[in-house]
Amino acid sequence: MTSNDINIAVLGASGYTGAELVRILALHPHARIKALTADRRAGEEMSAVFPHLGGVALPRLERIEDVDFSDIDFVFCGLPHGTTHEIVAGLPEKTKIVDLSPDFRLMDVAVYEEWYTDHKAPELQKSAVYGLCELQREGIAAARLVANPGCYPTSSILPLAPLLEAGLVNADQIVIDSKSGVSGAGRAAQEANLFGEVAEGIHAYGVGAHRHMPEIEQELSGAAGKQITVSFTPHLMPMSRGILSSIYVNLNDGQTAADLKKTLEDRYREEKFVRVLPEKALPATRHVRGSNYCLMNVFEDRLPGRAIILSAIDNLVKGASGQAVQNMNLMAGIDEDTAISQQPLFP
Amino acid sequence: MTSNDINIAVLGASGYTGAELVRILALHPHARIKALTADRRAGEEMSAVFPHLGGVALPRLERIEDVDFSDIDFVFCGLPHGTTHEIVAGLPEKTKIVDLSPDFRLMDVAVYEEWYTDHKAPELQKSAVYGLCELQREGIAAARLVANPGCYPTSSILPLAPLLEAGLVNADQIVIDSKSGVSGAGRAAQEANLFGEVAEGIHAYGVGAHRHMPEIEQELSGAAGKQITVSFTPHLMPMSRGILSSIYVNLNDGQTAADLKKTLEDRYREEKFVRVLPEKALPATRHVRGSNYCLMNVFEDRLPGRAIILSAIDNLVKGASGQAVQNMNLMAGIDEDTAISQQPLFP
Amino acid sequence: MTSNDINIAVLGASGYTGAELVRILALHPHARIKALTADRRAGEEMSAVFPHLGGVALPRLERIEDVDFSDIDFVFCGLPHGTTHEIVAGLPEKTKIVDLSPDFRLMDVAVYEEWYTDHKAPELQKSAVYGLCELQREGIAAARLVANPGCYPTSSILPLAPLLEAGLVNADQIVIDSKSGVSGAGRAAQEANLFGEVAEGIHAYGVGAHRHMPEIEQELSGAAGKQITVSFTPHLMPMSRGILSSIYVNLNDGQTAADLKKTLEDRYREEKFVRVLPEKALPATRHVRGSNYCLMNVFEDRLPGRAIILSAIDNLVKGASGQAVQNMNLMAGIDEDTAISQQPLFP
Amino acid sequence: MTSNDINIAVLGASGYTGAELVRILALHPHARIKALTADRRAGEEMSAVFPHLGGVALPRLERIEDVDFSDIDFVFCGLPHGTTHEIVAGLPEKTKIVDLSPDFRLMDVAVYEEWYTDHKAPELQKSAVYGLCELQREGIAAARLVANPGCYPTSSILPLAPLLEAGLVNADQIVIDSKSGVSGAGRAAQEANLFGEVAEGIHAYGVGAHRHMPEIEQELSGAAGKQITVSFTPHLMPMSRGILSSIYVNLNDGQTAADLKKTLEDRYREEKFVRVLPEKALPATRHVRGSNYCLMNVFEDRLPGRAIILSAIDNLVKGASGQAVQNMNLMAGIDEDTAISQQPLFP
Repeated sequence: MTSNDINIAVLGASGYTGAELVRILALHPHARIKALTADRRAGEEMSAVFPHLGGVALPRLERIEDVDFSDIDFVFCGLPHGTTHEIVAGLPEKTKIVDLSPDFRLMDVAVYEEWYTDHKAPELQKSAVYGLCELQREGIAAARLVANPGCYPTSSILPLAPLLEAGLVNADQIVIDSKSGVSGAGRAAQEANLFGEVAEGIHAYGVGAHRHMPEIEQELSGAAGKQITVSFTPHLMPMSRGILSSIYVNLNDGQTAADLKKTLEDRYREEKFVRVLPEKALPATRHVRGSNYCLMNVFEDRLPGRAIILSAIDNLVKGASGQAVQNMNLMAGIDEDTAISQQPLFP
Repeated sequence: MTSNDINIAVLGASGYTGAELVRILALHPHARIKALTADRRAGEEMSAVFPHLGGVALPRLERIEDVDFSDIDFVFCGLPHGTTHEIVAGLPEKTKIVDLSPDFRLMDVAVYEEWYTDHKAPELQKSAVYGLCELQREGIAAARLVANPGCYPTSSILPLAPLLEAGLVNADQIVIDSKSGVSGAGRAAQEANLFGEVAEGIHAYGVGAHRHMPEIEQELSGAAGKQITVSFTPHLMPMSRGILSSIYVNLNDGQTAADLKKTLEDRYREEKFVRVLPEKALPATRHVRGSNYCLMNVFEDRLPGRAIILSAIDNLVKGASGQAVQNMNLMAGIDEDTAISQQPLFP
Repeated sequence: MTSNDINIAVLGASGYTGAELVRILALHPHARIKALTADRRAGEEMSAVFPHLGGVALPRLERIEDVDFSDIDFVFCGLPHGTTHEIVAGLPEKTKIVDLSPDFRLMDVAVYEEWYTDHKAPELQKSAVYGLCELQREGIAAARLVANPGCYPTSSILPLAPLLEAGLVNADQIVIDSKSGVSGAGRAAQEANLFGEVAEGIHAYGVGAHRHMPEIEQELSGAAGKQITVSFTPHLMPMSRGILSSIYVNLNDGQTAADLKKTLEDRYREEKFVRVLPEKALPATRHVRGSNYCLMNVFEDRLPGRAIILSAIDNLVKGASGQAVQNMNLMAGIDEDTAISQQPLFP
Repeated sequence: MTSNDINIAVLGASGYTGAELVRILALHPHARIKALTADRRAGEEMSAVFPHLGGVALPRLERIEDVDFSDIDFVFCGLPHGTTHEIVAGLPEKTKIVDLSPDFRLMDVAVYEEWYTDHKAPELQKSAVYGLCELQREGIAAARLVANPGCYPTSSILPLAPLLEAGLVNADQIVIDSKSGVSGAGRAAQEANLFGEVAEGIHAYGVGAHRHMPEIEQELSGAAGKQITVSFTPHLMPMSRGILSSIYVNLNDGQTAADLKKTLEDRYREEKFVRVLPEKALPATRHVRGSNYCLMNVFEDRLPGRAIILSAIDNLVKGASGQAVQNMNLMAGIDEDTAISQQPLFP
């Protein structure tokens, strides 16, 4: 172990985001995976749960209570919501955490409790940083606890926050229509996510009530400088990975789609993982699959005074495990793109 | 041949809508397919072009100029836009026509020419009826030439027209986000529609410029009683059939989502093919696949004063060939649901 | 109710085969669905379990013990294996049964018990007829209890039985490589059948041990006139419906692939649902989807003295519910193709 | 440029294998892509042809005749068959070549000409090495011209060659049933590969006549020590990447499936990219997607004296571009796994 090594525990490793962390970290020159937990699969090899990882040398799955955290530098927490507060509260002070659950994303504990359940670590919440790397780089670098953003919020906030900050669009009439692959629903065995139920179909869900709304609103309110509400409708469609968000906005007086595009280009010019596409190029989920990129573009609407913003990410990478590693890199003070510069897999 | 028999020619039978007409008409007790045309495949058996139809006895494919129209009662025209005007103009007066192309859908010839090409039968245009059966039943029954609606327009107009007629929603701020299966793009060999290019992906296309816009606007303007413009964005996704339209509207003062739902329920209560779903039930394309149904529902938005309307159709059935047969049934004075009451194929 | 009406109960209606029976019977002029059972969903509307059937008027789901069988003419039994024996044994004598489970398919009770579980109605077994319509038409017409064939057996036996009867192929070296869509695994919520686990993949399963083997062997042994064993390997692939069986055989002395093809053509020339394709035409599952057809063809192998036989069915239609209705039609003495002459849905 | 740098030209970069080479080489610490050719797209950016590669700095596409080969160390040739001979013959002597086309795979020029077209560089053929890395490591390391194996042959030869060398299976009765994703057919716009034609279907093709047969037979004959013929049937199925080969063999006297498995385990124990799975574990294409692995396993057949061998690869990686880079690494004397140790992308 060199002084650069980062000893890592992945809690909740039997889900898709856990597997994706392992896939990514397998290419990370400094990461040493020391512990993988999965309560119901404790004692098994990771390759029994995820055969595609059979080529990576990994510790056996164990229960969280059996992990020796004394030499763990970083914890990735991919546990179900409501279970993370107490576990994070019990970690050694020196351990840094990237939490992929929603448990620390909502800075207002009351809002969390309205949408989820009791918050069991409200003190800790105050120190949590919302880990959207391109927008919170300094805060993340200094944080001990980073709340990794949700997938839909990542795809929505990256294009919208700079536009709201600049006052270019009407903050009160934002409509976000998102289309997601099935992996966002996790690996739990549910009839609704069977191949036969998903293939050759599309439908909206959680209409007017999806839990990613308060998270989107929190970050966009911060950007807008006032409390706002958005219209957000997710759809489930037959692909394993990817989110496309089609965002419909009213322009503020005098603004044009071209102004929006230029603002985003200026904001993200130096960013490796956010790419504002050339004129007329259409963000597509197949062009980000397996990568940490967010592609976006702006189009004039046919309705006067309106614009259409499109953004695409891989929900398991930039929308989850890739951004989590990007956060770790920032927190560890190493190159931000370490292990996440793999190009998309197409076709 | 009994007096009830309808002798039919399908022009442009080598496309998906042509094949779908044959599939449907195979169950029609009165339909007799007398001619199938496909210029480039003339001389071949239909089963060579569409092996799934090998179980149906059919005439060979021929060229249009080789068809003897003298005993043809009905013509289904599935030709590329711009080619239909002259062909229809040359048909015998007694022959009735359902045209699946856009060539007769835009009642204002100038609008047609702006979006497509020269209109070569403007006189005939005046007699054409827009064939959205549930909204134009009487006109269709009396017509000789029916312009079969486009797929996106069908999914948009059916839910929106009654709401605009009743003045429930703001006609100037309608946003339609549609997701379509690939068959809508036809069977032409194009790189963009290869399996490897479509699978595991979604992207918008024709943003701000899709040719179905003027058609939607024509019909919605009629319903609203004033000229309106809509925001319409189609998306291509990995399924063979189906369109889901997610429609975002501002409610007029005092209206609620429940009011919208009740208006649609009242409007479509007696309709066999339009079903307003029970509260909270989500229209899904997999629930209409292969059928002539349009499913719809209305939801309260989280943004105050707004509602979300969802509608689902099979683009090749209610969005094309099924509605075409429904139109023929109306024009022939036989039961409207003849041959199109097949239930959806799921999974 | 006319004298032609057939009163029907579908037991186990909450599975895919139950839904498919309803879809098919909705077009049947004589079928009256009087009872639908599903223990765990008793009390619910069928449309709550299968929203795609919302357009069909149906009785509510109930428990089997609540069904009044006194006026039921036909029972379709789609229950899990091991549960059917006692239920069928308890039905009124006048009721005819088509059992879609494997519970009555194996004529040798000992073989059943080796592969499944205790047989609880061995007396009844003796009267059961294996319901492969094209091969057992007379027996089926006279039967009270028909064991509807499994999906893999249907796709294998239809092409192989005539060839073994005619002594054209080596009965001891038959290799069957079958590829199935996911609906064959039913609707139970299992991780292995999630969209994310199935999409973009293929794998074999049950290698050397699949329960359809003894059923295939029973029927092929009958055709061969001696006890035989086959090599059968099923594969799971990303489609909802369909089975393609690729069958590799050694030709007996002097035989050619053309001889095999001619034998099949002669055997099935008058059959509506079995089609031996023209030379070189390739059976494809997409050409039978939603239909009761079995397509087959024979090809010369590059290995001397061998041939390749390909057959395609829709596992839920000819491989389950379509054949079940075909059996019912035979047993009721009505046209064999009633309600199952729908053409395939493509694309 | 350090002395370790490898200057690379990719000829035929507008196909899937070209794009995949770029994806892989983007992570290669020594690779410098100096030229990309695509005759019909010359002058365009690679990101216009493959938007998913927009994050990689690349030279513009150009015509082959415009490439300055003077400082090119390695050429990857991904051109259509029949066009490679002359181009390779014209390259500078110092340039090493990995040819992904079939043009140099068949060592017997007469066999090549029987299956393909005239061979225009028979002299060069003598120096070509068949680049199946695990079986020809030394030859490849010393070669100037490596013929990169076809995808089906890779999946077939890796498991079969060691078994034939050891004399464990009957060399004259091998049946290979392969299932492939669509990317194997390339990116050319063909009706047969449209999404609507491929989705929800499977069919065999090239039955008894596929061009990969002579290649398989050449290598297996070498292993068997005698000229052999195999039965090989490819199938096209709805996935973008992946090949699963199900191989049916007769065991030689006294051999068991366990013997075969042990032989493969012994042969590949030290190989990073070939993994013989644990007992009963099933090779699946989704477990290799995007990676250079070949997974394999052996199973007892129900037919006495027979075994079933399953193998899975990603056709674009181990079956094409990944193995091509593996070959380059060997030829350049650097670590064989450089840039190809990315783990599979799942789901």
